Amino acid sequence: MRRVVLFAGGVGGARLAAPLARALGPEDELTIVVNVGDDFEHLGLAISPDLDTVLYHLCGLADTERGWGLRDESFGTLEELRALGGPAWFALGNRDLATHLYRTQRRSEGAPLSTITAELVRARGVDARVRLLPVSDAPVRTMVDTDAGELAFQSYLVERGARDRVRGFRYAGADEASPAPGVVESIAAATQLIVAPSNPYVSILPMLAVPGIARAVAAAPGLRSGLSPLIGARAVKGPLVAMLEALGHPATSFAALTAAGFPLDFAYLDPADAHETPHFAAAGMRVVLFPLVLRDAAADAVARALLEPALPG
Amino acid sequence: MRRVVLFAGGVGGARLAAPLARALGPEDELTIVVNVGDDFEHLGLAISPDLDTVLYHLCGLADTERGWGLRDESFGTLEELRALGGPAWFALGNRDLATHLYRTQRRSEGAPLSTITAELVRARGVDARVRLLPVSDAPVRTMVDTDAGELAFQSYLVERGARDRVRGFRYAGADEASPAPGVVESIAAATQLIVAPSNPYVSILPMLAVPGIARAVAAAPGLRSGLSPLIGARAVKGPLVAMLEALGHPATSFAALTAAGFPLDFAYLDPADAHETPHFAAAGMRVVLFPLVLRDAAADAVARALLEPALPG
Repeated sequence: MRRVVLFAGGVGGARLAAPLARALGPEDELTIVVNVGDDFEHLGLAISPDLDTVLYHLCGLADTERGWGLRDESFGTLEELRALGGPAWFALGNRDLATHLYRTQRRSEGAPLSTITAELVRARGVDARVRLLPVSDAPVRTMVDTDAGELAFQSYLVERGARDRVRGFRYAGADEASPAPGVVESIAAATQLIVAPSNPYVSILPMLAVPGIARAVAAAPGLRSGLSPLIGARAVKGPLVAMLEALGHPATSFAALTAAGFPLDFAYLDPADAHETPHFAAAGMRVVLFPLVLRDAAADAVARALLEPALPG
Repeated sequence: MRRVVLFAGGVGGARLAAPLARALGPEDELTIVVNVGDDFEHLGLAISPDLDTVLYHLCGLADTERGWGLRDESFGTLEELRALGGPAWFALGNRDLATHLYRTQRRSEGAPLSTITAELVRARGVDARVRLLPVSDAPVRTMVDTDAGELAFQSYLVERGARDRVRGFRYAGADEASPAPGVVESIAAATQLIVAPSNPYVSILPMLAVPGIARAVAAAPGLRSGLSPLIGARAVKGPLVAMLEALGHPATSFAALTAAGFPLDFAYLDPADAHETPHFAAAGMRVVLFPLVLRDAAADAVARALLEPALPG
């Protein structure tokens, strides 16, 4: 019986979460701890992009090409909002909107994010062996310090198209936050911990910034594996390379996998980055080379390799 | 040059507003003062049903059969919300949702309801001679006292299908509210005031409950006309007859037109209610008999009759 904890941001986490769930044995359990640093309030709605992306992938409804939102989605509401002169920079599909309306209504009733997430997971028919936990029920908001001033994450990424030069990050609210129910317990009980190929600055660090998480990870008895979010110095998605370089780091898998300070036993690299192996070895990490294109059968192969009790390398 | 002020609730007001707007001469102006007593917060959204119904009719986008919402509307978001187990009792169409999202966003930015309404009116391309004013920028909420306890208006009407016996009404917040900018000035400058065939308890009285409105109406120099919301003891729409009877009144046009205490010079009755004429005469009102089915050409005829400087009767 394996108890797997996956630390996940948005797309990278979602693309790994679904194949991991498929690879579970009958007695296995998968707990996905999800970043809430890019959650925001928009149009009055409580939006949790990473939780939604992971959930939509888990239940098979995700638009996997686009990387966000639901398949076969229509955008009539957004088009109408644009016609009214409203802020339409954050794309919200008609069916996706129901998730935000549900969450907003339940929040207004006092339900914590973890409870709402569990309700959505159940309503979407996700496998009962899989749990989805926001890292915290309290707001943690990634703020991006840029040459255009400090920006809320979604303003930086979506509204302004990640065009501003990054100088640093702040995780507002993290100091006062605490782990959501079950998070620390899951980490302590895990047979293995997996860090998804997510952006260290805006997906992993906002989780480690919640008091108690980093300590739980450091004390965890399970094996800790991380997948590089870079393949051949390119991010699969998002502005990670620009962030690394703006902060004075090379665009390498080593820089990406160590930036968050998440202690790792195993680093999964794409063969394109095999030349980086000595850096990891020097830092006490074992490298597993595996094609990291998380699509279809290749993603399932990565998931099975991760769940193998005797890891190669 | 006519300066017309129309006091409007939802459907009754909307069905009169559009033909009145069509009947305006080049120099005429129409100000529609709209009830906000059935506004509510739902799913995190700021919803103003009467303002929206009037606006949608004015811009020709209303679903005039149904009486609410937009024509050619789809309901994918609502269906998805229902599938998630969320509260789906208040029907929200996909395009209609954009109006609520726009209003909610602007409210969160601090814009008053009257400003937001003006923006929506402009965005929808309404004739520049027509103004739409919420009676107040402050919240006024119609609360219905029933044998099942006090209910917020939308809970009474939509969620519970108006099945509870009514004992009375309260207009929460009215005492602290003040008229929105332009309302009192429009009333004072009006050449005529028209009360739409709206429910007196839940459309007209919540407006008169805002301090300053009843006094402005009483002091207005313009002729005051009211259209009966009943035709042959039946309401065109809604639970007015049950309300009148529950409060000990007969289901008559006289009861309906006098229940709100709005002072009238002219009462417009459908010929089906011609027998009530003596009651109005005894109360000092002149009766105009006119078919009050506010559809198509008949509605335009009513509007033209209302705007005639020399009223018959």
